[in-house]
Amino acid sequence: MDDLVGQYFEAAVDHLRRVRAEEGEAIGRAADLLAEAVAEGRRIFAFGAGHSSLAAQDVVYRAGGLVPFNLLNVPGMAGVSVMPAPLGSALERVSGLATATLDLTPATHGDLLFVISLSGRQVMPVELAAHARTRGLRVVGVTSLAYPGQVTSKHPSGTFLKDHCDVVLDSKIAVGDGELTHPGADTSFGPVSTIVTSALMQAVVVGAVARLADRAQRGAGGTPPLFRSGNVDGGTDWNAKLMAEQADRIFYAF
Amino acid sequence: MDDLVGQYFEAAVDHLRRVRAEEGEAIGRAADLLAEAVAEGRRIFAFGAGHSSLAAQDVVYRAGGLVPFNLLNVPGMAGVSVMPAPLGSALERVSGLATATLDLTPATHGDLLFVISLSGRQVMPVELAAHARTRGLRVVGVTSLAYPGQVTSKHPSGTFLKDHCDVVLDSKIAVGDGELTHPGADTSFGPVSTIVTSALMQAVVVGAVARLADRAQRGAGGTPPLFRSGNVDGGTDWNAKLMAEQADRIFYAF
Repeated sequence: MDDLVGQYFEAAVDHLRRVRAEEGEAIGRAADLLAEAVAEGRRIFAFGAGHSSLAAQDVVYRAGGLVPFNLLNVPGMAGVSVMPAPLGSALERVSGLATATLDLTPATHGDLLFVISLSGRQVMPVELAAHARTRGLRVVGVTSLAYPGQVTSKHPSGTFLKDHCDVVLDSKIAVGDGELTHPGADTSFGPVSTIVTSALMQAVVVGAVARLADRAQRGAGGTPPLFRSGNVDGGTDWNAKLMAEQADRIFYAF
Repeated sequence: MDDLVGQYFEAAVDHLRRVRAEEGEAIGRAADLLAEAVAEGRRIFAFGAGHSSLAAQDVVYRAGGLVPFNLLNVPGMAGVSVMPAPLGSALERVSGLATATLDLTPATHGDLLFVISLSGRQVMPVELAAHARTRGLRVVGVTSLAYPGQVTSKHPSGTFLKDHCDVVLDSKIAVGDGELTHPGADTSFGPVSTIVTSALMQAVVVGAVARLADRAQRGAGGTPPLFRSGNVDGGTDWNAKLMAEQADRIFYAF
């Protein structure tokens, strides 16, 4: 029965290899936008609802991550720590929530927003991306392009998240998000979406850090503002110093 | 510069291959405990603080996941959606929080708790695992055994999470959690901990589902209680039915 455990890891590895091979160019374009936003002192936000929030949170206040990355935190939608847990999915269908939320953030023309949605078909991610572009933000969408061909949009326009982005990163997760089956189980299981989506987000950060570090080496800019781990000596003091320097674009701390 | 993006994916793939090869036996033992807990109608909880919460949330209320998996939700510690974001790390150092929290859950003798902590050295995960075992729970720890050899415990006993578990899953993440370096960057970057920890948690679920499905095929038990995706036809109705059946061990919905 542990053949299935091995198959699960193989599915995750195959999926990471596939997005590396096929999404490299899109990762590079997203990294261009992120590096430019950091260099120009723009505000940077990431949003996802329910489980799609996990990969957004993975790049915020993160050892080895960029200091000015903020979570666009919509109450009731961050992960499954909300009560009741199905609230996040329910709120994704509510029209008006995206515009109300974004209008109350300091996000403005030239800022950068990452919107993560596995299916890309719910009202919230579609409205959020569309409204952000109306306000002059750049939008990077992280979504699976397997969905638009197989399910309908829940937004009245019939559009998906992918239709409102400057750059789309395709996670290629199959509809249903289960890599495995078993004749004694009623449904597929073994989801890899968090692994793949987190890898895509981290890969964009790596690409942006590489661009900024290249410029710093040439004397064309400062070193990238990276958090150190709190588990290494001096990490906490280093992080406090960077957070003070970046205070005007950080919205996750006082 | 996108060599580093390629190296990031390679690091993630290598790491997944390594835990698959070296942690298979521990994954199997954790899957035994999880399958037994589901079959016996026990309560099942997962906890992590800050970024370690992300892999815990990844197995809760999850398409392809087990219905009776609950988040042990400690206010201020779930991910980085809290304000201020450093609160989660600060609370990890507070003694007494683990016992106060666990004592107010319905968790009891014979139930199962997953505790996720990258370093395993903070007060909260050590106290939580130790107190859970005092109460007769089984404890599975997901942590990196690279830390105990290189950093000191913050718990007065000098022990780590690993010292208070029935099964330990070693994520093997290096101290600092950054796979990459660049001469123009002040610190390492490119963390893979969420990818690897999520894979370990999902692999344990896969192993447990396989065990339950094997038994169901032999007529020795019901099919595993698995959520369907809300993006597939009938998924929502199916999930509501299972949640009603499992109501006495679900604490994330009314």
